[in-house]
Amino acid sequence: MRHRLETAAKKGMLADSAMIAHGRGEAYDYLLGERTIPSAHFATQVALHTLKNAQHPVLSVNGNVVALAGDEILLLADQIKCPIEVNIFYRTPERMDALLSDLNERKQRLGLDVDILGSHPDASIPGLKGPRAKCESRGILASDVLLVPLEDGDRCEALVAMGKTVIVIDLNPLSRSAQRGTITIVDELSRCLENMLSMETNGLPTASEYHHSETLQAALNEIVNGMKNKFSSE
Amino acid sequence: MRHRLETAAKKGMLADSAMIAHGRGEAYDYLLGERTIPSAHFATQVALHTLKNAQHPVLSVNGNVVALAGDEILLLADQIKCPIEVNIFYRTPERMDALLSDLNERKQRLGLDVDILGSHPDASIPGLKGPRAKCESRGILASDVLLVPLEDGDRCEALVAMGKTVIVIDLNPLSRSAQRGTITIVDELSRCLENMLSMETNGLPTASEYHHSETLQAALNEIVNGMKNKFSSE
Repeated sequence: MRHRLETAAKKGMLADSAMIAHGRGEAYDYLLGERTIPSAHFATQVALHTLKNAQHPVLSVNGNVVALAGDEILLLADQIKCPIEVNIFYRTPERMDALLSDLNERKQRLGLDVDILGSHPDASIPGLKGPRAKCESRGILASDVLLVPLEDGDRCEALVAMGKTVIVIDLNPLSRSAQRGTITIVDELSRCLENMLSMETNGLPTASEYHHSETLQAALNEIVNGMKNKFSSE
Repeated sequence: MRHRLETAAKKGMLADSAMIAHGRGEAYDYLLGERTIPSAHFATQVALHTLKNAQHPVLSVNGNVVALAGDEILLLADQIKCPIEVNIFYRTPERMDALLSDLNERKQRLGLDVDILGSHPDASIPGLKGPRAKCESRGILASDVLLVPLEDGDRCEALVAMGKTVIVIDLNPLSRSAQRGTITIVDELSRCLENMLSMETNGLPTASEYHHSETLQAALNEIVNGMKNKFSSE
């Protein structure tokens, strides 16, 4: 994963804060045992069901998502038959170009037919200021269900305020995104997407079976249980 | 702190992994409430007493230490009357030069008389391979008490195996350095050094009053207590 980020950084795909954000994720993943915990597996099933049954699902991606799991996000979009929209917090033309090129190269290599949006923003997310508000009217603006992995808290909140079902993938169960999302999967991004791609899609649980606070508390409890009496027997 | 790291990165002072390591630290600091917890304050007092009463104390610094708290480490060396040695895991001549120049500029600006070692390694830390083993015979090799903030686990172990008293500053109570160190302070580096610099130095507790496993467990317990029933009242 670090090598993928270093490669992406050299291509100009990442913001300065990308490596620090990844380090924070590493810390939480370590505390979770670097595995998909049961509550996250259930949330992943609910998320896949919700995406598959949406009117207009969109997968929103930023620099770290493309760097860490660009192929997997394309394969998921192909499976769900929905567009991907590049939507970054520190938006510059150079970073947008680098991300769109990288995704389009991957798409060609994988031989997929997926719409990749983001290059022609013609709409705004209400409540956000400046370039970070930009989006496409046929993408994020029109969506009813959005997958936003590794999303910034402000934008997650703004999307929820638009009435959208927002599915968050975040290793920190205490982050604002994790708390504000409609459905939150506390798991490492590429592991979560691989789970979605290999999952049996019949009989998936629905959003009515998902309990948000309990899901976040279950993740905290996994961390807590690994810390209790760790050094007591020494 | 992020700005300090970005400035240092531009000067060539940091390894590629520096930002990721900082992000991991940020995650643990957040979980600890971004404050000096009581057990860390006590360990800081013990560490200062131990440094002040050493025969040949040395402060070992790497890129992140110089970037995040270069001034504070110089002021501490001045107070203890001991040398600083630049000792980095990914050792290249360019990074060594950048770090030594930065420290010498700070030293001049602060008007301090502190020996800064590392430029002429003539000894090795037994048990380590390659450039990461290099050290100075009049510095780390001769030391009886070493302060190693943000140290790599392998090197921390090798220094302990040499019979030295190794004082670790690390935000992750589960890291190998934190576990292997003789005295471990679970606190953010600049906060810890500022505490040391402003601390009353009479009547400090001694190493015999320090309990290593209990100190690490106390840090884990602080994290655990912040996570219990976090979402239960929602």
